[in-house]
Amino acid sequence: MHTYLSAALDIGGTKIAGALVDGTGRMTARVTRPTPADKDGATVMRAVAEVVGELTADPGWARVATVGIGSAGPVDASAGTVSPVNIPGWRDFPLVAGVRELVGERPVVLVGDGVAMTAAEHWQGAARGRANALCMVVSTGVGGGLVLNGQLHPGPTGNAGHIGHISVDLDGDLCPCGARGCVERIASGPNIARRALANGWQPGPDGDVSAAAVGAAARAGDPVALRSFERAAQALAAGIAATATLVEIEIAVIGGGVAGAGDILFTPLRAALRDYAKLSFVADLTVVPAQMGTDAGVVGAAAAAAQQSRLEAFLPTL
Amino acid sequence: MHTYLSAALDIGGTKIAGALVDGTGRMTARVTRPTPADKDGATVMRAVAEVVGELTADPGWARVATVGIGSAGPVDASAGTVSPVNIPGWRDFPLVAGVRELVGERPVVLVGDGVAMTAAEHWQGAARGRANALCMVVSTGVGGGLVLNGQLHPGPTGNAGHIGHISVDLDGDLCPCGARGCVERIASGPNIARRALANGWQPGPDGDVSAAAVGAAARAGDPVALRSFERAAQALAAGIAATATLVEIEIAVIGGGVAGAGDILFTPLRAALRDYAKLSFVADLTVVPAQMGTDAGVVGAAAAAAQQSRLEAFLPTL
Repeated sequence: MHTYLSAALDIGGTKIAGALVDGTGRMTARVTRPTPADKDGATVMRAVAEVVGELTADPGWARVATVGIGSAGPVDASAGTVSPVNIPGWRDFPLVAGVRELVGERPVVLVGDGVAMTAAEHWQGAARGRANALCMVVSTGVGGGLVLNGQLHPGPTGNAGHIGHISVDLDGDLCPCGARGCVERIASGPNIARRALANGWQPGPDGDVSAAAVGAAARAGDPVALRSFERAAQALAAGIAATATLVEIEIAVIGGGVAGAGDILFTPLRAALRDYAKLSFVADLTVVPAQMGTDAGVVGAAAAAAQQSRLEAFLPTL
Repeated sequence: MHTYLSAALDIGGTKIAGALVDGTGRMTARVTRPTPADKDGATVMRAVAEVVGELTADPGWARVATVGIGSAGPVDASAGTVSPVNIPGWRDFPLVAGVRELVGERPVVLVGDGVAMTAAEHWQGAARGRANALCMVVSTGVGGGLVLNGQLHPGPTGNAGHIGHISVDLDGDLCPCGARGCVERIASGPNIARRALANGWQPGPDGDVSAAAVGAAARAGDPVALRSFERAAQALAAGIAATATLVEIEIAVIGGGVAGAGDILFTPLRAALRDYAKLSFVADLTVVPAQMGTDAGVVGAAAAAAQQSRLEAFLPTL
């Protein structure tokens, strides 16, 4: 049945993952390299070429019909370029052209990493079977993607669903993006930790000041740590409610390290969502944890490529 | 060529408009009745029936292939019901069933009034030819609708694009909808007027305290009136930027009475948009006034019905 494979790359500031993915979502080959993020653009591209080289050397390569790339953003799918914030050597870097040289005649599809994660959760994870969904990653940054009318909605440039940079506090703190009061500026892991520290939270003897450490303190009952997660939850709720009010989603799926805090995040998030999602048509919105874990990026890039290439024989359910 | 007509109803808290619309957007028949908004639901429905009755008596009725309804929201297109905030006698009122009894076998399509206005601007107005657009009405309330991938995006319940009730100020003033800091709570005409009065603006000898009067004062250089419009512009900019960041729109079209203030609104709005639309893929977003005027509701309801009924012979360009 599943004759074809989709090759996929997941490119982030820390690592470059590659895989061959079959029509059931199983990875038949898998490669990872550290991203030389502090090097020049050509060096980063050589690391990508090494990952692709291992995939093309795999016996499964002959069955690869399409190639998907999920990249840290911003990306420009219409131009085939990427400018990842955390890979300074790549600015308007022609990644699609570079990958195309390595993979022959196969179609190459580029999407943002939030869109790729969304494709994975919609195909195999928590958004499976949902016609309208928002999937998010809450981690060092906050990203996301949308499913509308049963289809992935990457938008013309592959960046749609970029919920981390919508403002929910128009007079709020300046965000590195240049706007104010963005969801990411309030809800990302580093901002949860920063706020806890600023409000008097003390790290343990190991000196760990990560959001995970704040989460551990919150679970132990530390009120400052709890309030920092509650504030993040409030910003996420306002952003999720805004998304639902704008495009009518029925479910929001949240992955990433901060979502790993579990109830410390999800309980106040669900409560806050009741405060912001007030109109009748968004009142039934549910929020659930992601299911696909760290493979979401690469599996989703494969799914996005198969879907956009209309490779229906590969992914009959998409 | 344009053999078929689309019948349309535009139902608001003040008036009920009906029309027969041809494939060029021309109204070949037109009826209006005041909405008996303070009466019981059956009385309001009788007013609708009178409007429909005049349309069915028109010689053009035999050519009507589809019936569109744009209604003040919230609506529920999936259930065929409406609960307009400003028509208290209608709560979950089965409007589609009621209209269906009056129009025979024709398909009846229900959308929110913001979606209807968007259909009109996309078909014949300022969003014509745009693949991804947000159209808004800024008036007593703030509503809107979306065009995505070249298609109207009503959402499952016909309410998508409801930008007036996204929060851009998560700790802000309570909105009548129950959330806080909604775009409408800051940018609607009554809120522009309220804020100007609260900050010391004095109406003229005629005692007019409308947003239009505040707009006239702003044009005459009154700093408090100008600041009230600037604050509305800031909230609109944050909401428009959020929409663009979430779904990648290329243009925002603004109609309604407050948009009639012209540069008093649009100049600070375009400036504020540069502050909130910071990511590369939203930087080229433009904001323009609507073109369709008060007919947008009824023409758009006709267009939405024709499009959703796939009446392609009627509207070859949609």
